[in-house]
Amino acid sequence: MPKLWDETIDAHRRAVQEAVLETTFALVHEHGLASVTMSQIAKEAGIGRATLYKYFPDVQSILLAWHERHVIAHLGGLARARDHAGSPEQQLEAVLRGYAHITHERPQDGEIAAFVHRDQHVVRAQDRLRDLVRDVLAAAAAAGTVRDDVSPGELADYCLHALSAAGGLPSQAAVQRLVDVTLSGLRPPRGA
Amino acid sequence: MPKLWDETIDAHRRAVQEAVLETTFALVHEHGLASVTMSQIAKEAGIGRATLYKYFPDVQSILLAWHERHVIAHLGGLARARDHAGSPEQQLEAVLRGYAHITHERPQDGEIAAFVHRDQHVVRAQDRLRDLVRDVLAAAAAAGTVRDDVSPGELADYCLHALSAAGGLPSQAAVQRLVDVTLSGLRPPRGA
Repeated sequence: MPKLWDETIDAHRRAVQEAVLETTFALVHEHGLASVTMSQIAKEAGIGRATLYKYFPDVQSILLAWHERHVIAHLGGLARARDHAGSPEQQLEAVLRGYAHITHERPQDGEIAAFVHRDQHVVRAQDRLRDLVRDVLAAAAAAGTVRDDVSPGELADYCLHALSAAGGLPSQAAVQRLVDVTLSGLRPPRGA
Repeated sequence: MPKLWDETIDAHRRAVQEAVLETTFALVHEHGLASVTMSQIAKEAGIGRATLYKYFPDVQSILLAWHERHVIAHLGGLARARDHAGSPEQQLEAVLRGYAHITHERPQDGEIAAFVHRDQHVVRAQDRLRDLVRDVLAAAAAAGTVRDDVSPGELADYCLHALSAAGGLPSQAAVQRLVDVTLSGLRPPRGA
């Protein structure tokens, strides 16, 4: 049964990768990027150092893989939230609430953020997120529920920055209020 | 004339400090914090290394002084913009346009931002900025031109995050549109 064996190997590889990614994030978050070594990561993840090097060349590449995996998962979640909603208006609200929730739950770490955001993969993932938000805004503007005096791209930048305030908010209720306020900024101007 | 002499000395000290602060920022922005040395800074600023150490113990402290000086100047500018405006509504708009302008002009450097924002002086300066925006929002809410269903503190977080999008915008016109959209989010809900 070579197929089953392959699946077992694959599952094992994914489990090792998962353990390495989360261990690395936790260590870097606690001690800072400069003071975490590959040996520490191997020890904490419960694998040999040689095995770890079969997966990743250095701490930086693990951190980037960790971040990329999270971004891809988040993008998938937001696309599903959009697809399950009905009208363009509801799709927009689903995506913005989803993004605010992700931002609220995400651990705040300026050093890790500054490091990963220099990476080209992350820049591309940010672009995909902005595109997703821009497209739901364009559809809602075409339906007349979002202002059309400002381009969907500029409105997407406004939304993503405004909702990044969710990271510092103390409660889910405050996050919902932030989304409400952000959505009000998107309405067609009165008398327009 | 000891007083005049003192003033001359003071002016000289300020000029040296100014040169050191701006030189350090430029070097760190170009080469990264880890690769800039005190010797490089002294050479670029045109002073002796021993003189530089009379002013600052290390590169980090220069970078923090550079940032603090800018933040204090910006806070002063925003307070003046507020004081020159008339109604609470106009004060709010003056402060938000001023802040968006500062954000638009500021060089974008993730590493420097991540470094300085860990410093307690910077955290306090951020708090003062948030307080300034919160207070103009509270006055405008009392005057009925800003929504009162969300606290002025939460609205201040919304404004400051939304306006941070100005850093990536290509033109002053786009910055003005961003402020307009952000201001719309602050209006009392329709039918309220």
